[in-house]
Amino acid sequence: MFNKILIANRGEIAVRIIRACREMGIATVAVYSEADKDALHAQMADEAICIGPASPKDSYLNVQNIISATVLSGAQAIHPGFGFLSENSKFAKICKECNITFIGPDPECIDNMGNKSNARDIMIKAGIPIVPGSKGAIENEEDLLKTAVHIGYPVMIKASAGGGGRGIRIVYEEKDIIKNYENAKAEAEASFGDGTIYLEKFIEKPKHVEFQILGDNFGNMVYLGERDCSMQRRNQKVMEEAPSPIMTEELRKIMGETAVKAAKAVSYNNAGTIEFLLDKNKNYYFMEMNTRIQVEHPITEMVTGIDLVKEQIKIAAGEKLSISQQDINIHGHSIECRINAEDVSKNFMPCPGTIKELCIPGGFNVRVDSAVYSGYKIPPFYDSMIAKLIVYGSDRQEAIDRMRRALGEFVIGGVSTNIDFQFDLLNSEEFVKGTYDTKYIEKYMKNLSY
Amino acid sequence: MFNKILIANRGEIAVRIIRACREMGIATVAVYSEADKDALHAQMADEAICIGPASPKDSYLNVQNIISATVLSGAQAIHPGFGFLSENSKFAKICKECNITFIGPDPECIDNMGNKSNARDIMIKAGIPIVPGSKGAIENEEDLLKTAVHIGYPVMIKASAGGGGRGIRIVYEEKDIIKNYENAKAEAEASFGDGTIYLEKFIEKPKHVEFQILGDNFGNMVYLGERDCSMQRRNQKVMEEAPSPIMTEELRKIMGETAVKAAKAVSYNNAGTIEFLLDKNKNYYFMEMNTRIQVEHPITEMVTGIDLVKEQIKIAAGEKLSISQQDINIHGHSIECRINAEDVSKNFMPCPGTIKELCIPGGFNVRVDSAVYSGYKIPPFYDSMIAKLIVYGSDRQEAIDRMRRALGEFVIGGVSTNIDFQFDLLNSEEFVKGTYDTKYIEKYMKNLSY
Repeated sequence: MFNKILIANRGEIAVRIIRACREMGIATVAVYSEADKDALHAQMADEAICIGPASPKDSYLNVQNIISATVLSGAQAIHPGFGFLSENSKFAKICKECNITFIGPDPECIDNMGNKSNARDIMIKAGIPIVPGSKGAIENEEDLLKTAVHIGYPVMIKASAGGGGRGIRIVYEEKDIIKNYENAKAEAEASFGDGTIYLEKFIEKPKHVEFQILGDNFGNMVYLGERDCSMQRRNQKVMEEAPSPIMTEELRKIMGETAVKAAKAVSYNNAGTIEFLLDKNKNYYFMEMNTRIQVEHPITEMVTGIDLVKEQIKIAAGEKLSISQQDINIHGHSIECRINAEDVSKNFMPCPGTIKELCIPGGFNVRVDSAVYSGYKIPPFYDSMIAKLIVYGSDRQEAIDRMRRALGEFVIGGVSTNIDFQFDLLNSEEFVKGTYDTKYIEKYMKNLSY
Repeated sequence: MFNKILIANRGEIAVRIIRACREMGIATVAVYSEADKDALHAQMADEAICIGPASPKDSYLNVQNIISATVLSGAQAIHPGFGFLSENSKFAKICKECNITFIGPDPECIDNMGNKSNARDIMIKAGIPIVPGSKGAIENEEDLLKTAVHIGYPVMIKASAGGGGRGIRIVYEEKDIIKNYENAKAEAEASFGDGTIYLEKFIEKPKHVEFQILGDNFGNMVYLGERDCSMQRRNQKVMEEAPSPIMTEELRKIMGETAVKAAKAVSYNNAGTIEFLLDKNKNYYFMEMNTRIQVEHPITEMVTGIDLVKEQIKIAAGEKLSISQQDINIHGHSIECRINAEDVSKNFMPCPGTIKELCIPGGFNVRVDSAVYSGYKIPPFYDSMIAKLIVYGSDRQEAIDRMRRALGEFVIGGVSTNIDFQFDLLNSEEFVKGTYDTKYIEKYMKNLSY
C-alpha cells in the first residue's frame, strides 16, 4: 500500500480523498492554487503545496508543477479526483513515466473510453447497444451536415474530450447546426484543449441511468448498481438517486452485465461509470464511459456500503478486488443534492463570495461532503458546487422525507445558493413520481417564478 | 398518527426528535428556558414556547408549564427525550389524565423499572440474573450496615430514582459507608427529588453491556443487539460502541432473549434499554432498565438501520411493531464519542461559553447529532454534552479509523472540549483491543498528564 498520496484536485472531492487516505493510514499531499490558500483541502492534508496562480491552466491543470510537487513530497501516487486532469491520458502516461501511480485506469483505457468517439467504435465492436451517431469525429462542415441527415434530426453535438455537460449542443433543425457546431468546438477547445466533435441521435425524454463499475488489474470486474441522474439542467446533473425509481431487478442485471462487458472491452482497471440513456420502453443505449470517480459516487456508497475511493486506491496499489458480484446488494435508497453557490433567479449565475453563516444538516443517515466552512471565501475561478448533501433511507419515501428535512436545515449565509431550488425540485410532481427525464428541469423551470 | 408533538427537552436530543418528526410529517413544538432562547431546538421546531427561567426545576422540569404549552399548542403527544421528565411516572400519569400521549412506556412500567430497587425484585421473580444486593430500599443506617455485610464489600450505593451515574457511590470498606450513604442520599434528593437508596454488590472490572429493546402496545417485543458502554468516567458514559468487541453470536442471543424476558415482565411498551454487567467469565447480571431513549441510541441505529425515535413515535401512536426478531441483523460496527464542553486538564470541569469557530466532520458514514452552531453560547445551567460524533464502518477497525479521522476534523473554537481526550482514548491500548472495562478510564487517567 502507498505511504503517501498527492491529490491533484480541490474542493469537496479533494477533501473526500483526504478522508479516505486518512482512514487507510496514508499520508496526504494537497496541491492548491494561489486563490485556494485558505481552502479546506489545503488545510486538512498532511502537506500542502502551492502549484500556481488561480487560473486552472496554471495550477490544477499544470502538469509540470503537479509532477514536481509529487516528486518533491515523495508521494507514490496521484489521485486526480474528477474534472481537471482526471481523464487526461497524457497526464496518466507522464505519471507512469515518472514512476508515479495514477489512481485511475491505464492511459490506454482513458484513450479508448475517455475519447467519446473512439469509445463508440469500440462499443459497436463489443456488441453494446449505442445511440446512432457519427462514425468517429466530424471532419468538417460538409461531413457534419451529411451525417446529421443520415442520423436524422434532432441531433446532439458532443465534444470527444467532454464531460460534465460542457461542449454539448442539441440541434433540432439543419439551419441551426453550423452555428452550434462552431460554438461547441470553441467551448471544447477552451475547456479541454481538444476541439474534436462528434454527432449523436438525440433521444427525446430519456432517462440518464449510469452504472458504477470496479475493475482490478487482474481482470476481475463488478457492477455496483445504477444511479439515476436524469435530473439535469443544461446537461449538468443537479440531483441524483440510487437506485433509479424505474429500475427492475431484471433490467439492473442486464444493464449491469452490459456495463461490465463494455468496461472489459477496454480491459478497464479502476472505478468507472458507464452512462446509458434509457428510453421509455426501457431500451438502453451506451452513452459514454467516465474513466474516473463521479461527483455522485456517494449515493452508490450509501446503497452498497462500499467505499469507492478506498477501492480505487486499493486497486491502484495492485490489490485484487475483494468483492465479488454476489457480495453486492443494493439496500434502501439514497439521494444526492448538489449545493451550488449560484443565483437561481439570475439564470443560475455563479455567486462566489464569503460564507458568513453556516449550519450543516446532521442526524441519522445524512451525509455532507463539502469543502466549506464559516468564513470561507468561495473563489470565482472554479466550479460553483460547494457541497453535496446526501441522504439515505430504508426506502425511497424515507429518503425523500429525509432530504426534505435536511435541505430545510441547511443554512448558508452570505452567498446565494440553490438550496431552495433543490427543495422545490424534490417536492415537484415528477420527482416524487420518479418519472422525470433529462428534460424535466427545463420543462419545470417554465412554470416557475425564479 | 399524531399531527403535532411537543418535545419536552433541549439540546441535541430535542433536535434529534424534531428531525424524526419532520421526516414523518409531524409538526413540532419546542419548549425552552429563558437561557435557551437562542438554542437550536427552539429555532428548528415549527413552534417554540418559553416555559420558564434557566433553572431546570423552573423550566424543563416544570410539569405545569409543559402541560400548558402542550394544551395551548394543540400537540397530541409529548416526547420527553432523556433526563428531565423522561423517567418520571407522575409526569407520564398527568399526561394520560390530560389526554396527551406520553411517548414512552406506561407509567406503571416506569414505576416498576425506573425505580431501581423495585426493578430488582421484579427481575428476581422473573428469573433474570441480578447482582446480589439489598431487598429494596435501605431504610436506615442500621439496615445499611447489615445489608452491606450480608452482600459483602465492595458494595455500590445507588439512588432508586437515579440515572446517568448520579447518586452512585462505591464503598470498599465499612468505615466509609455512612459518609457515602449520606452524600449519595443528598445528591439523589437534589438531582431527582427522591433520596431513596439501595445497595448492590460491586463487581470489579465488569463490562457495561446494554440491550436495546422495542415493545409495542400489543405485547410484541424485539431486541436490537447490544451496546458496549464500558468506557465510563465516574459512571458517566464517554464513548460507546456496537456491537461489543467481546460479544459472540450465542451470547447475544441469550442476553437479548433475557432482555426481552425482563422487559416483558413489566409488559413494557416503547423503546427501552436493559443494562447488564458482564464479568470476565461472561456471566451477566441485570443492572437496571432505562425506560426511555438513551444518549447512545444512534450506534444501534447505525448497525441495525432502524430509526429508534421513529419507532418510539409509531409505538406511542398505537401502531404494531413492523419488525420481527428475524428481520433484525447487526451489520458492521459503530462508535459514538460524546463531545463535551469541558476542561479535561481541570478535572473535566464544564466549560460553558461561546462557540467562535465550528467545523463539523463529514463524509461517508460519519454522523453528527448536535445542537450547536457557530456563534452559539453554551449556557452554564445544563449538561456539558454539546454533540455526539457517531461513525459507522464495515468492521471495527474501519470504524476506529473513521472515528480517528473524524475527531481530527472536528474543530470547536472558543470553548474547551474533550475532543483531544476522546482521540487519545480511541488510540489507547485497551480500547483498540476491546478489553476495556468500566474502570478503564480511571486507570488510564493515572498515566496521563492531563
